[in-house]
Amino acid sequence: MQTGGISARIINSSIMEPLLSTELEFTRQLAQQFPAHPPVAVGIGDDGAVLRNFGGSDTVVVTDMLLDGVHFDLTRTPPELAGRKAIAVNLSDLAAMACRPTAAFVSIAAPKSVESEPFLAQLYDGIRSVADEFDVSVAGGDTNSWDGPFAINVCMTGTPFHEHAILRSGAQPGDSLVVTGPLGGSLQSRRHLTFDPRLRVAELLSGKFLIHAMMDLSDGLALDLNRMMESSGTGAVLTAAEIPIHPDVPTSLPAPDRLQAALGDGEDFELLLALSPDDVQQAVDLADDEHEFPIAVIGTVVESVGCRIKDEAGIIRDLAATGWQHFG
Amino acid sequence: MQTGGISARIINSSIMEPLLSTELEFTRQLAQQFPAHPPVAVGIGDDGAVLRNFGGSDTVVVTDMLLDGVHFDLTRTPPELAGRKAIAVNLSDLAAMACRPTAAFVSIAAPKSVESEPFLAQLYDGIRSVADEFDVSVAGGDTNSWDGPFAINVCMTGTPFHEHAILRSGAQPGDSLVVTGPLGGSLQSRRHLTFDPRLRVAELLSGKFLIHAMMDLSDGLALDLNRMMESSGTGAVLTAAEIPIHPDVPTSLPAPDRLQAALGDGEDFELLLALSPDDVQQAVDLADDEHEFPIAVIGTVVESVGCRIKDEAGIIRDLAATGWQHFG
Repeated sequence: MQTGGISARIINSSIMEPLLSTELEFTRQLAQQFPAHPPVAVGIGDDGAVLRNFGGSDTVVVTDMLLDGVHFDLTRTPPELAGRKAIAVNLSDLAAMACRPTAAFVSIAAPKSVESEPFLAQLYDGIRSVADEFDVSVAGGDTNSWDGPFAINVCMTGTPFHEHAILRSGAQPGDSLVVTGPLGGSLQSRRHLTFDPRLRVAELLSGKFLIHAMMDLSDGLALDLNRMMESSGTGAVLTAAEIPIHPDVPTSLPAPDRLQAALGDGEDFELLLALSPDDVQQAVDLADDEHEFPIAVIGTVVESVGCRIKDEAGIIRDLAATGWQHFG
Repeated sequence: MQTGGISARIINSSIMEPLLSTELEFTRQLAQQFPAHPPVAVGIGDDGAVLRNFGGSDTVVVTDMLLDGVHFDLTRTPPELAGRKAIAVNLSDLAAMACRPTAAFVSIAAPKSVESEPFLAQLYDGIRSVADEFDVSVAGGDTNSWDGPFAINVCMTGTPFHEHAILRSGAQPGDSLVVTGPLGGSLQSRRHLTFDPRLRVAELLSGKFLIHAMMDLSDGLALDLNRMMESSGTGAVLTAAEIPIHPDVPTSLPAPDRLQAALGDGEDFELLLALSPDDVQQAVDLADDEHEFPIAVIGTVVESVGCRIKDEAGIIRDLAATGWQHFG
């Protein structure tokens, strides 16, 4: 074992004690271990990081790693769609920060067992199709082959559509909670491979309204709402009857299972917003006028921490932070 | 197969024809397929990309993916050193662009088979030690577990130490070629796990001299020099006797093998510079004064393309673009 000049630090460290249990807790611990310092204005814990540049502009950076067998299955997913998804999930993170994408950096570990030339050509076709659609330059990356399965990491930069990036930490008691589309059934229907990142909605709404908080729904409404509320130091009460359920959730399912699908399936890639109640009606009207994105008001931000849900009988119960957890 | 709205583009595309053969050729083709456009001032093909921000400042972005079994071997490399190397190789890329690091984004695929808590704690200890040493914030990332081997991707941002980032494409006929330290034996000695990225040298030299071109030596001098010369539209003649051979290369080897180790072993993470001959003596004197980095003048940039090497008998032969190729 060769540790060179860093052994003392390794021995003395107590990173990640106590034990990590969930992705939420893990992220919380990482954020404590790696506090942001200038020029990083916002570090670990949001959809992306905010770097303050000389001259006052902000650069927002997001990253997502997708793995064969976890985020798609190459035995039934063509490489084009794996590449498309790797870009799209990062675009969704930038939408959540109300940012226009600028550049993408694509790192790939390709299995030696695949015919690398057609595989990579198809993969890059998928990447290029969605990069072109959203006018983002693929400006760098790293391509490797190995004995492991296929892995792809995309890191993407962006700049705020308007003055600032929108964080998930700004929700205020009294705010209305809004989603930009119906939820549930994404993995089963394979919608997660072809979804449209909500950049246009984010640009439109962030230009018209002071959005208090925003994030994208990647791990299911229940888990992601808990994240937003924890970041904001607030709680939430959802109205079950108002949560839009995606047509991909089979209508043959019992109602509680359909609701659970909307709350917990994950990979919806819609946006969750906290908006002043004064703005909500205008936002709904705007959405109706545009005939393009169906936004729904699903609940309210409250002072008391924790997330709850009110069913059709008016009974309120706790909304556990369950959902699609990539880690663990 | 579900292709949605992107199928037409997939069918019509001819990305990566003709066949890719080497990493050099692959990078060349990617750069053609993904041309840089504003705000990307420099895209695929250099050590990093340059993004021009509103207000005139530049953000430089680099990325490297490291894989178990390719870039280290976890059966004999402790996780601390894997984490350290993942950060250090990106710091080396920023040094090569004459940039100060600002933020790091760390994506991880951890095998389910490892005890994830101690493994990740040790990994992040290694990351933190080198991040702290070079004052870079870990500002985001993505942590996953899967059935594959360990993979880590780091994307890092930086800002130029002085006015601009230094590219590999600016070498001019008549320039002297300089390296910041001895080469060879890095993989065998495991120096590649503990090397010091040359940020301080890069800051010092780029503050004193107009460096025409710079890059880091990750894949071996022979291959990397060919890359710099191709980018610059120039050629080079090295003087074999001037190439500094690292003490990690066994002295018991025959002289041609020792030279070959310096040319082709790779993972040296020293810097290669093209400097005006008017500046070279001052640079050497400065290095002597500082007693910290031994720089060596190893050759000359020439007009006629291709790389050549002159042996001790004065015979000049072609220097093939061989080295450590991660791809293929």
